[in-house]
Amino acid sequence: MEHHTRIKVYYEDTDSLGVVYYANYLKYLERGRTELVDAQGKPIQQWNREGFILAVYKIDITFLKPARLGDVCDVVTRFVSGSDYRKRLKQTIELGGETITEATVDLVCLDAQLQLREFPPGILE
Amino acid sequence: MEHHTRIKVYYEDTDSLGVVYYANYLKYLERGRTELVDAQGKPIQQWNREGFILAVYKIDITFLKPARLGDVCDVVTRFVSGSDYRKRLKQTIELGGETITEATVDLVCLDAQLQLREFPPGILE
Amino acid sequence: MEHHTRIKVYYEDTDSLGVVYYANYLKYLERGRTELVDAQGKPIQQWNREGFILAVYKIDITFLKPARLGDVCDVVTRFVSGSDYRKRLKQTIELGGETITEATVDLVCLDAQLQLREFPPGILE
Amino acid sequence: MEHHTRIKVYYEDTDSLGVVYYANYLKYLERGRTELVDAQGKPIQQWNREGFILAVYKIDITFLKPARLGDVCDVVTRFVSGSDYRKRLKQTIELGGETITEATVDLVCLDAQLQLREFPPGILE
Repeated sequence: MEHHTRIKVYYEDTDSLGVVYYANYLKYLERGRTELVDAQGKPIQQWNREGFILAVYKIDITFLKPARLGDVCDVVTRFVSGSDYRKRLKQTIELGGETITEATVDLVCLDAQLQLREFPPGILE
Repeated sequence: MEHHTRIKVYYEDTDSLGVVYYANYLKYLERGRTELVDAQGKPIQQWNREGFILAVYKIDITFLKPARLGDVCDVVTRFVSGSDYRKRLKQTIELGGETITEATVDLVCLDAQLQLREFPPGILE
Repeated sequence: MEHHTRIKVYYEDTDSLGVVYYANYLKYLERGRTELVDAQGKPIQQWNREGFILAVYKIDITFLKPARLGDVCDVVTRFVSGSDYRKRLKQTIELGGETITEATVDLVCLDAQLQLREFPPGILE
Repeated sequence: MEHHTRIKVYYEDTDSLGVVYYANYLKYLERGRTELVDAQGKPIQQWNREGFILAVYKIDITFLKPARLGDVCDVVTRFVSGSDYRKRLKQTIELGGETITEATVDLVCLDAQLQLREFPPGILE
């Protein structure tokens, strides 16, 4: 499983150093995960309504190179491993053939009261 | 009624032009309104739980001068006029004694289903 | 001139009321304007490097209906009027055939020192 | 060295799950680091003007519990170790006496062209 989402850098994403603000790469990664879930057939808002919420428990992220205004990046999401209660993804952001950000993302599944529950079948498999 | 909220500009607020990104001034204005509500005795999250949601229906905003990283601004909120179903505020952002942003903000009150309802007593009076 | 940009609502755009946070509609409008400029042949970052910066001087915006997680909206940008020093655009956000946000946007052109200058030919005409 | 910065959760920080959006905790951490630098005598924007930019190279962050609208949190920043080219901080976000987020943050120092340089004396020591 490898999923690709294209994102473009707008002013909103940059900061006064002229590059994408570090927290905003996490927005790109989340868009990638949402697109991956949506691509599996049931959109994320539908999962939410049914009481399944994907939440990041832990993320280890390295910022190798910056992206800038107008850059078009590719968010690549790969499934690494998983149990009933934990899924690990590897996500990278690619720009011009180079990896500019790489992250290991541990996800849990929560219910509507934000309590831990098992992942349902058919999501991130 | 005139309420003051102090805000400081961080990297997250700026963009690659070296100034605060235009949409982020609206965040500052919202912080000012939230602080005004909180100062009247019942915090905004409590109003929400009781089924009263303040929503901006219309905002007219002029960006006169920019704020930059590290600037400390004063968000000034004044009550202008109101009926049971509409309140108008005048908000400005001040920096070093100068008005850098000015806005006229029309608010409505919504219930938990985001339907229009009357403003309750004790909020924005 | 009428330009369309498709945007999708992600978690980052929403707030605890379950809808898109009001300032984030301004991000969508800015994406629409950037895409319009880019579509005219020279991307916004290139204009910036040449010392031409488009800045919003004033925006009047009405929030008619909310967008929610997963919604796909259409940002529509129309040129209204302009002089050498001021351009006015009309922008709407459409969702399922309905206008959910409408805005009148007044733009100025700034140089690299953020001083007012004439709009160059070939941008927003 | 242990530095504390108080932050309050506003609508802008939350998402449709009713809690702070995960990327926004990184904004809080950055505010904490900026306040730490500012408290050492020279504000971050002055360091930038002199050609010293602090950039996060790597962050490992665990999200233990969520913060919600109106919560007032304490961002705690501690210096862990450092060399001329790398500094490590430990940062936590505390709410009501509990740690809700914990992060290990590796910083580098860049020049105005975003190239690696030695940390100057007097910053994060």
